[in-house]
Amino acid sequence: MKVGIINVTGYAGVELARILHRHPDAEVTSVTGRSQVGQNLKDVFPHLAAADLPIEEELSGSFDVVFSALPHKASAEGVEPLVRDGVRVVDISADFRLKEVAEYESWYGVTHPCPDLIEDSVFGLTELHRAELQTANLVANPGCYSTCAILALAPAVKAGIIGPDIIVDGKSGVSGAGRGLALGTHFSEVNEAVSAYSLQGHRHMPEMVQDLDLLTSDKVRLTFIPHLIPMTRGILDACYANLKDGALPTGDGAQAALLDLYRDFYANDPFVRVVDKAPSTKHTLGNNDCIIYPTLDARTGRLVVIGCLDNLVKGAAGQAVQNMNVMFGLEETAGLQALALYP
Amino acid sequence: MKVGIINVTGYAGVELARILHRHPDAEVTSVTGRSQVGQNLKDVFPHLAAADLPIEEELSGSFDVVFSALPHKASAEGVEPLVRDGVRVVDISADFRLKEVAEYESWYGVTHPCPDLIEDSVFGLTELHRAELQTANLVANPGCYSTCAILALAPAVKAGIIGPDIIVDGKSGVSGAGRGLALGTHFSEVNEAVSAYSLQGHRHMPEMVQDLDLLTSDKVRLTFIPHLIPMTRGILDACYANLKDGALPTGDGAQAALLDLYRDFYANDPFVRVVDKAPSTKHTLGNNDCIIYPTLDARTGRLVVIGCLDNLVKGAAGQAVQNMNVMFGLEETAGLQALALYP
Amino acid sequence: MKVGIINVTGYAGVELARILHRHPDAEVTSVTGRSQVGQNLKDVFPHLAAADLPIEEELSGSFDVVFSALPHKASAEGVEPLVRDGVRVVDISADFRLKEVAEYESWYGVTHPCPDLIEDSVFGLTELHRAELQTANLVANPGCYSTCAILALAPAVKAGIIGPDIIVDGKSGVSGAGRGLALGTHFSEVNEAVSAYSLQGHRHMPEMVQDLDLLTSDKVRLTFIPHLIPMTRGILDACYANLKDGALPTGDGAQAALLDLYRDFYANDPFVRVVDKAPSTKHTLGNNDCIIYPTLDARTGRLVVIGCLDNLVKGAAGQAVQNMNVMFGLEETAGLQALALYP
Amino acid sequence: MKVGIINVTGYAGVELARILHRHPDAEVTSVTGRSQVGQNLKDVFPHLAAADLPIEEELSGSFDVVFSALPHKASAEGVEPLVRDGVRVVDISADFRLKEVAEYESWYGVTHPCPDLIEDSVFGLTELHRAELQTANLVANPGCYSTCAILALAPAVKAGIIGPDIIVDGKSGVSGAGRGLALGTHFSEVNEAVSAYSLQGHRHMPEMVQDLDLLTSDKVRLTFIPHLIPMTRGILDACYANLKDGALPTGDGAQAALLDLYRDFYANDPFVRVVDKAPSTKHTLGNNDCIIYPTLDARTGRLVVIGCLDNLVKGAAGQAVQNMNVMFGLEETAGLQALALYP
Repeated sequence: MKVGIINVTGYAGVELARILHRHPDAEVTSVTGRSQVGQNLKDVFPHLAAADLPIEEELSGSFDVVFSALPHKASAEGVEPLVRDGVRVVDISADFRLKEVAEYESWYGVTHPCPDLIEDSVFGLTELHRAELQTANLVANPGCYSTCAILALAPAVKAGIIGPDIIVDGKSGVSGAGRGLALGTHFSEVNEAVSAYSLQGHRHMPEMVQDLDLLTSDKVRLTFIPHLIPMTRGILDACYANLKDGALPTGDGAQAALLDLYRDFYANDPFVRVVDKAPSTKHTLGNNDCIIYPTLDARTGRLVVIGCLDNLVKGAAGQAVQNMNVMFGLEETAGLQALALYP
Repeated sequence: MKVGIINVTGYAGVELARILHRHPDAEVTSVTGRSQVGQNLKDVFPHLAAADLPIEEELSGSFDVVFSALPHKASAEGVEPLVRDGVRVVDISADFRLKEVAEYESWYGVTHPCPDLIEDSVFGLTELHRAELQTANLVANPGCYSTCAILALAPAVKAGIIGPDIIVDGKSGVSGAGRGLALGTHFSEVNEAVSAYSLQGHRHMPEMVQDLDLLTSDKVRLTFIPHLIPMTRGILDACYANLKDGALPTGDGAQAALLDLYRDFYANDPFVRVVDKAPSTKHTLGNNDCIIYPTLDARTGRLVVIGCLDNLVKGAAGQAVQNMNVMFGLEETAGLQALALYP
Repeated sequence: MKVGIINVTGYAGVELARILHRHPDAEVTSVTGRSQVGQNLKDVFPHLAAADLPIEEELSGSFDVVFSALPHKASAEGVEPLVRDGVRVVDISADFRLKEVAEYESWYGVTHPCPDLIEDSVFGLTELHRAELQTANLVANPGCYSTCAILALAPAVKAGIIGPDIIVDGKSGVSGAGRGLALGTHFSEVNEAVSAYSLQGHRHMPEMVQDLDLLTSDKVRLTFIPHLIPMTRGILDACYANLKDGALPTGDGAQAALLDLYRDFYANDPFVRVVDKAPSTKHTLGNNDCIIYPTLDARTGRLVVIGCLDNLVKGAAGQAVQNMNVMFGLEETAGLQALALYP
Repeated sequence: MKVGIINVTGYAGVELARILHRHPDAEVTSVTGRSQVGQNLKDVFPHLAAADLPIEEELSGSFDVVFSALPHKASAEGVEPLVRDGVRVVDISADFRLKEVAEYESWYGVTHPCPDLIEDSVFGLTELHRAELQTANLVANPGCYSTCAILALAPAVKAGIIGPDIIVDGKSGVSGAGRGLALGTHFSEVNEAVSAYSLQGHRHMPEMVQDLDLLTSDKVRLTFIPHLIPMTRGILDACYANLKDGALPTGDGAQAALLDLYRDFYANDPFVRVVDKAPSTKHTLGNNDCIIYPTLDARTGRLVVIGCLDNLVKGAAGQAVQNMNVMFGLEETAGLQALALYP
């Protein structure tokens, strides 16, 4: 399979190059960059010493699949001609995630370049949309926080054990903010500090709501507040909701029943691990796992679910490759079997 | 004023020594340690090069005030004879925070050594108990998470603008876990990682509930989940609650009214800063401030309050000195005016 | 190939388990631990969820090769019976690195348990001892600092372009100090701090000297000072020596000639990358590369060589697997092709 | 005393504001910034909540002393009119450090705006130039690496115990690179990584050589290689040189004689602490100390000196205030007595 990557020079793009480098069935044959056009991938990124590919202005050649790691709006503009030409595309940007154009335009403050393509696109949360992904031509890869929160909440929402009021408190490493320069990602500003941001609304919230609403007839009322953590990779979402009366057995059986519910839900998902003690983002460093720990605050009758993943792998490039595997009928884990790096 | 410090060799104890070293009205005249007895403070802690004091097995001399930075139970045992002798004591441990002995014994799993002393002790959240502190003989300095959460929630709880369901999602630097050795504070284990802990209940929760319940006739139903962050100092609590209908003006005036409510509440508190954008723990590094940002999630009708502070200063040793200042009628800010270290 | 790991529960041991998990020709069939005997590897180390192996007191079964990740002395004691039984062993400890028993006993302060085994052991710096490794029964895997410094200096020492006075200034991440608990690896003590240590002599120095002396008739006079850096993985050694007169062309050709000399030296070594600008340890995170940048301080006539690697991979477990590959005639890169994790 | 700060918005400038805020004899009455003109200092830097000063385009009012924290060349241009007007100036930039204009222009690649001012300027390494500083009108505050290296080497160079070949291996936190945006200070690039830089020559080298050459008739031949460390504040220099024969007593007395030599040299310097074990940058966090540990590698006959300091305090703003104190006959420690923040 021949693969193209649009905008390989951001963190999601370069992570795609790293993962695909050892994929048994895929070969990256052309890459573009918003910066450093004309240079070679291996010179710009020394860890890709084995990747001898020029960074081009435009993709060259033909492809079975193209990944776009451009920012929003630019990504839709970049992939539109490919999609219309019949090339299958996985878009890591937000451009095709929200089904309502108006909602997209309100959250992103831009006009959508090709709203007609939204309808047939598939939201690439692999575990929840696997069937549709098999025939998808345009996949909207979910946001990193959203992937984590949706996976953490889906079993409970689907089973109807919680009420519609949900709090998601997210914590992310700095690589989630990308490779672009800003005071907010300057080492001396974010090191040894934690802060909340986007308190007036973060763009991953509407996609969480949209995908969870597909699982329930109650509309969720979800507040999402993200925090910036002084580390490079990793996202951890803590999710809080009130349990409905009688949703779980009383007493000691409640936790076991909850774990069963979650384990059944993800029984056939190689990258979701439901565990019975609090996980650390370190357990996912560099791999495609999402680890989920559902538990109860029995005193107040609340569900607390901790989910974590590597924002650049399951939260971006890894899930994009997982989606490619599903789209092309490959082994879902192909190229994605690396264990996490510890410590 | 002559001051003794029991167990100066932990992080709270050594921070007391640092702060008191330049206090205009206090002189540390004797210190004890659970380890390194016989050595000199300046040799064990090179940053205290100017502090020429032997670490003793027991305090020697007489004192106006004694601080205890021992772990729970040991602290009550250590300060009991001092209190009975009429020495004024600020206890940084948890031993006198909870008013119900049974609750203390349930959360800490030990028998309280001197339950009769609890009743007359004062919970040392300075801003909320200033009057009682002036005459207190035994002050129970609050926990670091609790100080932050109570200060962040008190104005809203007191004003009755929120319902009783409260989520507190805490994030703490590693120094909060103390200077003792454990795999959970080993650099390679916690660096580049974030994780939730104490999901079955953290000991700071009951003191949050106890102190907030004093402000309202509704009993709060509070879930508190703390997280360990790869940084040394700093705590940030994100607090979530549903607003009552009509609690605030509708529309654009809501945020301004909320800020006014908080600013009025803390109008006379030199160490609480109510701000109008999201703060960073870095803004409190090494100083005694607690910064509070109250805001609204208008879409869901929720209050979100971000509070942050330095866990070793306002969260421990700094507030202890602030309490001492109040107890002895000194300027409340004496010895505590340092600006935060930035970056 | 059946593989045993003695003391899998330290960082080098668990890294062996991670690397070997995906090795195409090797299967770990038994592991021991100094702690956590009776538990399962996947429960102790959540990132090894796929590794379903009990941690035993003693290895069970038969093996083609055994790795020992025990501390010094315990390791010699542990592998001695295996070696005498004809099992091929790679020892990650220091027990068989120094050829002079007296020197070993002086640096390590213990009596060597089986000095007769030293003579036939091979120092496992793969690139310099590949031929001997093919038939070795006992391999002494080099220290992390030593691997880096020897590789950085070998071409210059062999070519005779520098004098015998050499300074090696090393910087290491904290995982090099192991998983044991100590104040020196406590997060709050080493985070946001850099310090030199072992100023009275570090144990990796004599193995650097021993191996470099094999390449020259001049005896090197080497000073080595290591530093602890607030990061988890990575070693960077800066090496300084005076160039001999006429050793390199004068003027602009000097740097090119130096690069050529280094590139020729490592022309057939898949894991040594000679580069022409300063590398970062980040370019080796999680992989088996050693990156070397040789350059000149023309003003003073000095050679400066920067070398870096991941202390747990090329500096320990990765090189151990590389040695196993050479010992058994496998592809040298088998199981070791992972790209570095960036960022 | 009325004080102005030119370019308060960089890290050195804002650290000046922090330190001077509590100086007993000085008041900052006007500040300028290259960015954020028109805003208030307390709004741009929340940790300076108490500093109510507008950031102006140009200084307004009259001054006893002005600090410039502008980059090189811009600084000389900025302070020239003040100096010619008789205002005493402490320049934190490099513009007046090198006595040879040609050398300045070669290292900095610019034409010096006012070379005639160089001659009467004083190099502000306080401990070595205290007498001249008392009457100086223009002080060239030294570089951070230089301050550390010169203080670490001066006693040995002055006493003539070492030969002229000197290696300085420097390690610096990221704040030394300033507050400007660059990929090299982007969190995800420098976190969990160490790298050497400026291998073709760092600008602090010539000022080290210039100042050390004043202490000896031998010209030093010094190689200086700096490294970037993933921490915010702190510099540690390891300095290496060969001891001259007979320079120190042989045997066990050597170390004691060396310590005596260093302690005598700095007997009257409140901010230089000569210690007898390896220091950590953490022991200087936020304060004006330079800690020096001189020791011997007896095996090779080498002197090894470790020096460390906080690059923004003794390495920049703190030493600038120390120089101001000397210039105006104030207590040298005024405003600078803070203990280091630990941990």
